[in-house]
Amino acid sequence: MEAAPVSAKPTLRVAALSGSLRSNSWHHGLIRAAEELCEECIPGLRIDHVDISGLPMANPDLETDGGDGFPPAVEAFRDRVSAADCFLFASPEYNYSVTGSLKNALDWASRGTHKCWADKAAAIVCAGGDFGGGRASLHLREIGIYLDLHFINKPELHIRAYEDPPKFDGEGNLIDAKARERLKKVLLSLQVFALRLQRREN
Amino acid sequence: MEAAPVSAKPTLRVAALSGSLRSNSWHHGLIRAAEELCEECIPGLRIDHVDISGLPMANPDLETDGGDGFPPAVEAFRDRVSAADCFLFASPEYNYSVTGSLKNALDWASRGTHKCWADKAAAIVCAGGDFGGGRASLHLREIGIYLDLHFINKPELHIRAYEDPPKFDGEGNLIDAKARERLKKVLLSLQVFALRLQRREN
Amino acid sequence: MEAAPVSAKPTLRVAALSGSLRSNSWHHGLIRAAEELCEECIPGLRIDHVDISGLPMANPDLETDGGDGFPPAVEAFRDRVSAADCFLFASPEYNYSVTGSLKNALDWASRGTHKCWADKAAAIVCAGGDFGGGRASLHLREIGIYLDLHFINKPELHIRAYEDPPKFDGEGNLIDAKARERLKKVLLSLQVFALRLQRREN
Amino acid sequence: MEAAPVSAKPTLRVAALSGSLRSNSWHHGLIRAAEELCEECIPGLRIDHVDISGLPMANPDLETDGGDGFPPAVEAFRDRVSAADCFLFASPEYNYSVTGSLKNALDWASRGTHKCWADKAAAIVCAGGDFGGGRASLHLREIGIYLDLHFINKPELHIRAYEDPPKFDGEGNLIDAKARERLKKVLLSLQVFALRLQRREN
Repeated sequence: MEAAPVSAKPTLRVAALSGSLRSNSWHHGLIRAAEELCEECIPGLRIDHVDISGLPMANPDLETDGGDGFPPAVEAFRDRVSAADCFLFASPEYNYSVTGSLKNALDWASRGTHKCWADKAAAIVCAGGDFGGGRASLHLREIGIYLDLHFINKPELHIRAYEDPPKFDGEGNLIDAKARERLKKVLLSLQVFALRLQRREN
Repeated sequence: MEAAPVSAKPTLRVAALSGSLRSNSWHHGLIRAAEELCEECIPGLRIDHVDISGLPMANPDLETDGGDGFPPAVEAFRDRVSAADCFLFASPEYNYSVTGSLKNALDWASRGTHKCWADKAAAIVCAGGDFGGGRASLHLREIGIYLDLHFINKPELHIRAYEDPPKFDGEGNLIDAKARERLKKVLLSLQVFALRLQRREN
Repeated sequence: MEAAPVSAKPTLRVAALSGSLRSNSWHHGLIRAAEELCEECIPGLRIDHVDISGLPMANPDLETDGGDGFPPAVEAFRDRVSAADCFLFASPEYNYSVTGSLKNALDWASRGTHKCWADKAAAIVCAGGDFGGGRASLHLREIGIYLDLHFINKPELHIRAYEDPPKFDGEGNLIDAKARERLKKVLLSLQVFALRLQRREN
Repeated sequence: MEAAPVSAKPTLRVAALSGSLRSNSWHHGLIRAAEELCEECIPGLRIDHVDISGLPMANPDLETDGGDGFPPAVEAFRDRVSAADCFLFASPEYNYSVTGSLKNALDWASRGTHKCWADKAAAIVCAGGDFGGGRASLHLREIGIYLDLHFINKPELHIRAYEDPPKFDGEGNLIDAKARERLKKVLLSLQVFALRLQRREN
């Protein structure tokens, strides 16, 4: 029986959140494409799609135990966020910012004494008109300061979804090869950054 | 029968939205204080507190009629936003931005062919720790670009709610006289700005 | 001798600032195009291109008279800003924000007891790669809160200058007819907004 | 003769930039305090105060060698930025953003094929009225996305310089013990983060 090689890269678990609730959302499609890319060609990275659609609206009146107890759906969500090594946000842009749903999820996992997002690496991918969701990503980065997220800077992926050639099919699947290649680069950059951050002083 | 005097100021209806869902919220208290101030000493301005707690999460799948039909609670909300002449946002800061609830409400009334917020004056008041909600107000202003809101620039009201003397009581009522005076100045500035914007070329 | 018609629109003076110092700048070209458009087809609007290249770096140590005296080049600049009815900013995006030169000019005219920018309408036009300068315009809008500028919300003009067909020639002249038409709409929107804001209670 | 212990921490060079040009600037004082703190009680961290006052205004027309040659003062500045392991920005807030001087310096070192700021850790400290410079730090963080800077998230240091007890003396020296202690924590956090980022895959 041989020992595992010392240099074996640990598998990083990426909690992936889509900010949209629509069933055929491009942002669900971006997460499906990320799952496929990780399985096909990114050893050491595994996507865990965390659904945010069942969360109640954030409201401190729903908290118990002096602010450390939460409704069951929130507890389950917080557990999956806490279990992740890093994050992938697939964020639509609604009115120059993130969706209420995504903000709501971000807020729930920031409450209580255990800070579920804190000190982990993250990446943002967006699709939309105009700037391809770029303004939403700026807001998300500012929210991340207080959450203590460490976003990769490069590459940024803001897909202009209304320009030719088509980027998504009618079910929200990412069908553009160039965008897929750029998504892969985002994932690889997230992996490298998360690994750098994991190394701490002994 | 006498004619109404030509100079009579029309009464402006201010739709006031609190971004918090907690029952004893400071932001509900700010709206109550604004209602009192208008009744007591601001002729021509009337607050209409529009509750956002019953709205479903924004989701285009819930829209009908090619994007112009909405769930009943959303239709009722949109009607009250549309009926307003200007807006007062009482916005908490959650993680350096607005709450998911407030963003959700902003998004619902931006959908469809009728843009409920468009081309109207608005003011923001916040309470919180640190910057007193100041970062949330920056995000709200950016969201307002696309909604086509015209925010007053001065005065800004960001109440540092944890500093002495106490600003709110346990039920969220604004009890600090100086903060109340500053809130009055915000309302007067909103009134002047809304009236300036109402005057159009003939 | 006939009286002037009562309905004659006053001519609005637009101080136009280019944030670039390069001689063949697209942003100088945008201002030249705005000048031509006003002369050709926008009665009541006149562009005054205010050069910012000769200003020293903002430094309170250079101020005299208790903060109300400025170096000669700054005094001359402040006078031209003060004389304007509204503003057109042609702003490049350097590293996701405005240029140091433009920020420097904005700061000089904000100093002292006379606030040169205050309570006037403004519009922003940008050209660049990626978002066409869109992030710079977001920063400029936030700077404008404190300066008390009132920016038009729509239309926004962020020209993606590296996409076909060519938007500018080698001397920075705007040669794209569609972009020119969009620039005209920005100017018309600025004119309408500035006139609305000028009307005050008597 | 004994070998140095293998675990000896390397000394990190922190290039420190003050965004102010005034001689008695609080922000120069913050950098002086950081120098003292590093010498007194932070082994492994050394401040190099990089003066930005002599830089010309950024202008691509001043660049030579196809964009890779710069005026002598700019070349010298770029060399010092490139030599640093990480950065400390002492940034005033002018009109809700960074100063033109600081933006100008940031832009000069971002030009050419060698990206002087890229992939290094950074921290921001501010002093001012109101939010203590907090809005400037938000803009600086957005600028840093494109520069590829990695800012520490916590702690943030925004000193409200007009509140009692006095924070600075007339020469801009930091005289408040609590603020000094908070500055020390910022430096320690920067050190830890810079070391984490330095560790790469072999």
